[in-house]
Amino acid sequence: MQNSLLVSEYMNQIGASARKASPVIARASTEAKNLALSAMAKAIISNQDALFAANQEDIRLAQEKGMDAAFIDRLTLTHKTLTLMAEGLTQIAALPDPVGEVSNLSERPSGIKVGKMRVPLGVIGMIYEARPNVTADAAGLCLKAGNAVILRGGSESLRSNRAILECVHQGLIAAHLPTDIVQLIETPDRDAVRLMIQDETHLDVIIPRGGKSLIERISLEAKVPVIKHLDGICHVYVDESADVDRAVIIADNAKTQRYAPCNTMETLLVHRSIAEKVLPPLCSIYEQKGVEMRGCPRSRAIFPSMKEATEEDWRTEYSAPIVSIKIVDSFDDALDHIHTYGSHHTDAIVTENDTLAQRFLREVDSSSVMVNASTRFADGFEYGLGAEIGISTNKLHARGPVGLEGLTTQKWIVLGSGQIRV
Amino acid sequence: MQNSLLVSEYMNQIGASARKASPVIARASTEAKNLALSAMAKAIISNQDALFAANQEDIRLAQEKGMDAAFIDRLTLTHKTLTLMAEGLTQIAALPDPVGEVSNLSERPSGIKVGKMRVPLGVIGMIYEARPNVTADAAGLCLKAGNAVILRGGSESLRSNRAILECVHQGLIAAHLPTDIVQLIETPDRDAVRLMIQDETHLDVIIPRGGKSLIERISLEAKVPVIKHLDGICHVYVDESADVDRAVIIADNAKTQRYAPCNTMETLLVHRSIAEKVLPPLCSIYEQKGVEMRGCPRSRAIFPSMKEATEEDWRTEYSAPIVSIKIVDSFDDALDHIHTYGSHHTDAIVTENDTLAQRFLREVDSSSVMVNASTRFADGFEYGLGAEIGISTNKLHARGPVGLEGLTTQKWIVLGSGQIRV
Repeated sequence: MQNSLLVSEYMNQIGASARKASPVIARASTEAKNLALSAMAKAIISNQDALFAANQEDIRLAQEKGMDAAFIDRLTLTHKTLTLMAEGLTQIAALPDPVGEVSNLSERPSGIKVGKMRVPLGVIGMIYEARPNVTADAAGLCLKAGNAVILRGGSESLRSNRAILECVHQGLIAAHLPTDIVQLIETPDRDAVRLMIQDETHLDVIIPRGGKSLIERISLEAKVPVIKHLDGICHVYVDESADVDRAVIIADNAKTQRYAPCNTMETLLVHRSIAEKVLPPLCSIYEQKGVEMRGCPRSRAIFPSMKEATEEDWRTEYSAPIVSIKIVDSFDDALDHIHTYGSHHTDAIVTENDTLAQRFLREVDSSSVMVNASTRFADGFEYGLGAEIGISTNKLHARGPVGLEGLTTQKWIVLGSGQIRV
Repeated sequence: MQNSLLVSEYMNQIGASARKASPVIARASTEAKNLALSAMAKAIISNQDALFAANQEDIRLAQEKGMDAAFIDRLTLTHKTLTLMAEGLTQIAALPDPVGEVSNLSERPSGIKVGKMRVPLGVIGMIYEARPNVTADAAGLCLKAGNAVILRGGSESLRSNRAILECVHQGLIAAHLPTDIVQLIETPDRDAVRLMIQDETHLDVIIPRGGKSLIERISLEAKVPVIKHLDGICHVYVDESADVDRAVIIADNAKTQRYAPCNTMETLLVHRSIAEKVLPPLCSIYEQKGVEMRGCPRSRAIFPSMKEATEEDWRTEYSAPIVSIKIVDSFDDALDHIHTYGSHHTDAIVTENDTLAQRFLREVDSSSVMVNASTRFADGFEYGLGAEIGISTNKLHARGPVGLEGLTTQKWIVLGSGQIRV
């Protein structure tokens, strides 16, 4: 009781400080923000001994707790990751400032001029796992977009995050900005997250990064809007009109370039009239790369070494060297499959038929739809956003890769000269 | 038990039918949609006897239930309201179709072309009070933006809504579109609303229209994202640099042009150095128009017949001929007041100082910010949206007046020629 009272006071104070700092960063000049970002980058490099020492302590405690090698790997800061963090901040400084941009200003019959101005969201809550590099990335992106941010990283990375925050604060101080613009939740109390995601008074949006179960739990409990990223069950559909070589190259890359990302293809759909040309060379590549294939009966008739796919396979994000393969009778059957089993993340068609390409672009209801390109391109850097704070599977506000613009909103502005409504 | 099972089956069936109809209307041509809208307008005029008969029955039952005159007034269909409904549909037909518009298509270093395509939201749930005209407006706007819609109007308007739906369906049939694109919830069971706002499988967004308590209750229980409209505590700030005549004209219009709308000014803020010039003529107008004034001590010293304002007044949306008046010491004090007491809806400054105008536009965090114009302009028609389905006080997605564009979202499109990620 005592403790939960303390946590709620602590969280309320953090929220209030962020809300108070938010107008200051919202109206900060581009120059001040860029100066802060550059100074943060410098501080990370010049404080690397302190960063490594803090990180070593986190690693030691995580090892004592018996965390696995992959966990320790994500937690560990190296010279390379520190350099990348600093470079990331420098790159964010170089990106155009989205704040204050006015668009579509036009005069109405009443004589008023009406347009839209891009403005910060306000206060952002970032929740992420024990990956200290996210601390610098998220702080930099939120700041450049004119927002205050409250960070809650995995508790195993607390010492590293605190050391990085110290560098972030040095940057803010160098630019004469209040340090409350970037705050870190230091209590390991799990109630802190619940309090944060329900604090509509002080926060405008929550961005969680992590596994699906974490994000589902947050979405369920949150009162503050959540920019969430759930499944990536991505498809490549090879139409009968496809160029066979292109189809093989794209379906290979979409599956095997990396297995873990959310934009990796999980299910390959092939039109029956081209399956005998596409599947033999493609499946040989998969086999050679050690990708387990699970196919429909007709696919297995063409490439018998694949296993039988179950209904469950079509609904599964493997994030592993496994692919499900299905032969369909038509373009419409492919759309039906994507519509039924897909997760509205990223889907691609391989075709030389322009009409079908246009139909696919228009009718597939996913955050990214592609023609003759690998699904692996669904990424903030590849899209030219310069950086990405996450990929959204929401339909409203930000959809797909979220960069600086996704951390802002637009308000209406009206310029008059004494007009009144009659 | 039996009943709630039936309701959940009924709602599930409506949701599933809407989801099934949604891709059909999403890919419908502009011509088909406009044909449907025109045919709906014609059906409303040619079926007016049936509409009046249904409406008379609703009115009779509402009177029996003892509903008040204002309620009956909103419920009543007249020749004029029917004509306006039909004209509204014809105007929606004339608006540009937002669906399919591609923007910012540009080539990336990898060779892919990346852009955004505007697409429908999917399935929209509209919840509104016993105002039958909303049935036609909402159906028309959702349809033009390529969405399926589930309507839930106040139960006292059920017969009228059913008769209007019949006309809407005649329009859909004339354009060879499935009637499930527009469905009406016919059960008076209140569980129906709860089931609808939690049905994430079948609905993409909920738009409630009605009083604040209704909208707060829906927001609290909803799992589907809600485009909501809460308070409108709007301010006009008269700066020391204001033109006195303009200030008086704008502050008069912002309060008295109509008292009920959400964009009506509730609190007038006046810089101390101009108060003695602005308040006497303005307050005389208010007095003459029967507007009750509640002021701070300094305002009352200038115009003694006003009452004393309490702390509560600064937080109140009167929606009535009452205005609160406060003298402030500076531009920053005005911003502080708006920041502390405002509802982020619509706020205006009267000033001849360009620097302050720019600061006001940038720093006031409201969905509409205005310079030298009446807050009453915050409206879809006045902004040139052609029509408005509501005004959003959300920060994410749609902010301020919501027209056709607010009923759509954007997805990423990628056009390649065999590119893969390396």
